[in-house]
Amino acid sequence: MVDRTDTKQAQPAASRRSFLKASLLGGAAVAAGTGVARAAGDPLITEIQDWNRYLGEGVDVAPYGKPSEFEAHVVRRSVPWLTADPVSSVNFTPLHELDGIITPNGLCFERHHGGTATIAPADHRLMIHGLVDTPLVFTMEDLKRFPRENRLYFLECAANGGMEWRGSQLNGCQYTHGMIHCVVYTGVPLRYLLEEAGVKTSGKWLLAEGADASAMTRSIPMEKALDDCLVAFKMNGEALRPEQGYPLRLCVPGWEGNMWVKWLRRLEVGDKPWAQREETSKYTDLLANGKARRHSWVMDVKSVITSPSPQAPVTHGKGPLVITGLAWSGSGTIKRVDVTIDGGRTWQTARIDGPSLPKALHRFYLDINWDGSELLLQSRAIDDQGLVQPTKNELRAARGENSIYHNNGIQTWHVNTDGVVENVEVS
Amino acid sequence: MVDRTDTKQAQPAASRRSFLKASLLGGAAVAAGTGVARAAGDPLITEIQDWNRYLGEGVDVAPYGKPSEFEAHVVRRSVPWLTADPVSSVNFTPLHELDGIITPNGLCFERHHGGTATIAPADHRLMIHGLVDTPLVFTMEDLKRFPRENRLYFLECAANGGMEWRGSQLNGCQYTHGMIHCVVYTGVPLRYLLEEAGVKTSGKWLLAEGADASAMTRSIPMEKALDDCLVAFKMNGEALRPEQGYPLRLCVPGWEGNMWVKWLRRLEVGDKPWAQREETSKYTDLLANGKARRHSWVMDVKSVITSPSPQAPVTHGKGPLVITGLAWSGSGTIKRVDVTIDGGRTWQTARIDGPSLPKALHRFYLDINWDGSELLLQSRAIDDQGLVQPTKNELRAARGENSIYHNNGIQTWHVNTDGVVENVEVS
Repeated sequence: MVDRTDTKQAQPAASRRSFLKASLLGGAAVAAGTGVARAAGDPLITEIQDWNRYLGEGVDVAPYGKPSEFEAHVVRRSVPWLTADPVSSVNFTPLHELDGIITPNGLCFERHHGGTATIAPADHRLMIHGLVDTPLVFTMEDLKRFPRENRLYFLECAANGGMEWRGSQLNGCQYTHGMIHCVVYTGVPLRYLLEEAGVKTSGKWLLAEGADASAMTRSIPMEKALDDCLVAFKMNGEALRPEQGYPLRLCVPGWEGNMWVKWLRRLEVGDKPWAQREETSKYTDLLANGKARRHSWVMDVKSVITSPSPQAPVTHGKGPLVITGLAWSGSGTIKRVDVTIDGGRTWQTARIDGPSLPKALHRFYLDINWDGSELLLQSRAIDDQGLVQPTKNELRAARGENSIYHNNGIQTWHVNTDGVVENVEVS
Repeated sequence: MVDRTDTKQAQPAASRRSFLKASLLGGAAVAAGTGVARAAGDPLITEIQDWNRYLGEGVDVAPYGKPSEFEAHVVRRSVPWLTADPVSSVNFTPLHELDGIITPNGLCFERHHGGTATIAPADHRLMIHGLVDTPLVFTMEDLKRFPRENRLYFLECAANGGMEWRGSQLNGCQYTHGMIHCVVYTGVPLRYLLEEAGVKTSGKWLLAEGADASAMTRSIPMEKALDDCLVAFKMNGEALRPEQGYPLRLCVPGWEGNMWVKWLRRLEVGDKPWAQREETSKYTDLLANGKARRHSWVMDVKSVITSPSPQAPVTHGKGPLVITGLAWSGSGTIKRVDVTIDGGRTWQTARIDGPSLPKALHRFYLDINWDGSELLLQSRAIDDQGLVQPTKNELRAARGENSIYHNNGIQTWHVNTDGVVENVEVS
């Protein structure tokens, strides 16, 4: 039904039309290989199953639904040795199990520095003070009376991939790239609140402070604050989750996640950056010459193949194989994603599926016919500013090996003939 | 600080610029009215709170997260008298509590006819047979080897608002309009599977059958099947929820929800519609002349104001008020939404926020300064085909009063001076 030696898909896709044609040939292989073979005597088709015979659950359909019992393995995971104490820990998104560009709220990456604060919305306040004409205090109800916006944005920790800076260590994209989520944030443009208070001409910087026990504080330049920052109270349509700063968080689109201050309680306007702990001893990049690169806020153009990957091996043998992944840039949209299956010898243009929105995740696919031989998978993202994702070695040559932040290097997965996938580096 | 008699917002918005200006004046009222007044002696600002003093939860941040304890009221609800038995029931989306256009999976409207089937993915099969060259059986793994797509679509029950056909009965948009959800569905275009099996020239119709105890079956014309239908296995990035047909459902974009067969197990190709129970005695519209309108698949252009609404009264008194709602059309995108605050005497163009995607929900806002007087709120949607949402009376004049399906009439909310909102009709 199909030539198993067909390698159309291993060549750069000529056009969408030929791509689909090849895909359907692949599809034929699927049916011939696994589908039709079972058509005749498959008891699951020729017999009645329990779920046809007996009524399912009706009374117990949850007011707030949960995933299927068969999806219990799809969860956030932490790396115990990564932080000294669980009240300052990280939960990684299981990217290898997800598709599309929306992260379900229950699976969103989160990093907490003093545990998850429990705050009743009625008790929460946001204060704006400092170099303003009128210091203001807002209740949650006050904030919900301003015009609001909904924007799909990725939030990535500056340390995402940091443990890989010196070489491949972690065998799974949940751990190498899972410090990221992408949801629709709903909130009030920060500029409305700042214009409300009246920023003095000397006001050039903003200090954002969280209400949690870590009192997270970060300095933000006024230009960014007046550009696209949001004071958000909803994610994917519903209220923020507790670990995402319920009832209020700051959104700093395209910039490192640590600046997206959770449990936002205070905004102070000043004339210079504050140089707080989390923007000096942390979240700065120690270069080879001993100097620290600071104010490295923008998240660079980046991508990763989420499947196949170490946690998502190939279980169906040769033939049609869906290669998929995510690409993003803190500078705008993704213009193109290149994928190689041979460690960079040849590159193909991946299919970007779904809406392409600035500072949001992009989903890409490359549908191939796998001949069963070893693969070296890599993806390389290019954004609408023309910025190109570098190799890990290019990154080390430029920044040395001291840093743990802003690793946007190209990731390599080695697919063995048995479908097992490993995290490797090719020089 | 602001002229409380300012009625800028009651006039059609001139431009976004002037709109924002007016909004900010409104904002000033917010701060003056509720914010600054508390600035001086607010203990919540001048004193340290418990959530600053004590570490929050760290160890217990859930692998699969849940909403805040303060959001326990944000749940799906059913109407006990609506169905004879809970194994055939409806869970309504709490539209009045949500924002943006994404419905969180845990809050998605769902209708089950034989309870929720529990099916292990490894045991599930999809069979394609009938007027095809090659009958095929697919496992879930087979299906995941085809090229896939991600699309944001609304799913609306044909009976959404059906209980309102003869007049206003239910006091809340969760009940009058909550038989709808909007998520990103991930799946394989149905045409790939049909081309795989090879549809004979005599094959003009498709019968889709569910694997649950109700064995839901619906007839679908081949043109639609080959157009934009998806065989979906994911929603909002993660696996389908059990009550949404886990592990596999059909997506029939823009068409009535009952056709989106859940727990999809069988697709039979035939030469005419099957006239099954759910497309004859149900899901047809009995007209005044006794004839039944059938094959009324497309969901008409429609909108509703979700806040203020009976379940979301105005609690903050006069001044800035955010009026927001949803609009959608099974024929394409929403071109414009008009909103009236005086029962149709004057109309204003609402601000549509977020991406405008075909056959998906659209979020709209009208930010006004409420003078505290009674309001009669209505919204009227117009889609990119030029179709205009009718009044309920126009609908009754055309279809009589027997029907319970396809009620896309304009909804009216009466806002009292005390902020309480009621479901009313204006003739």
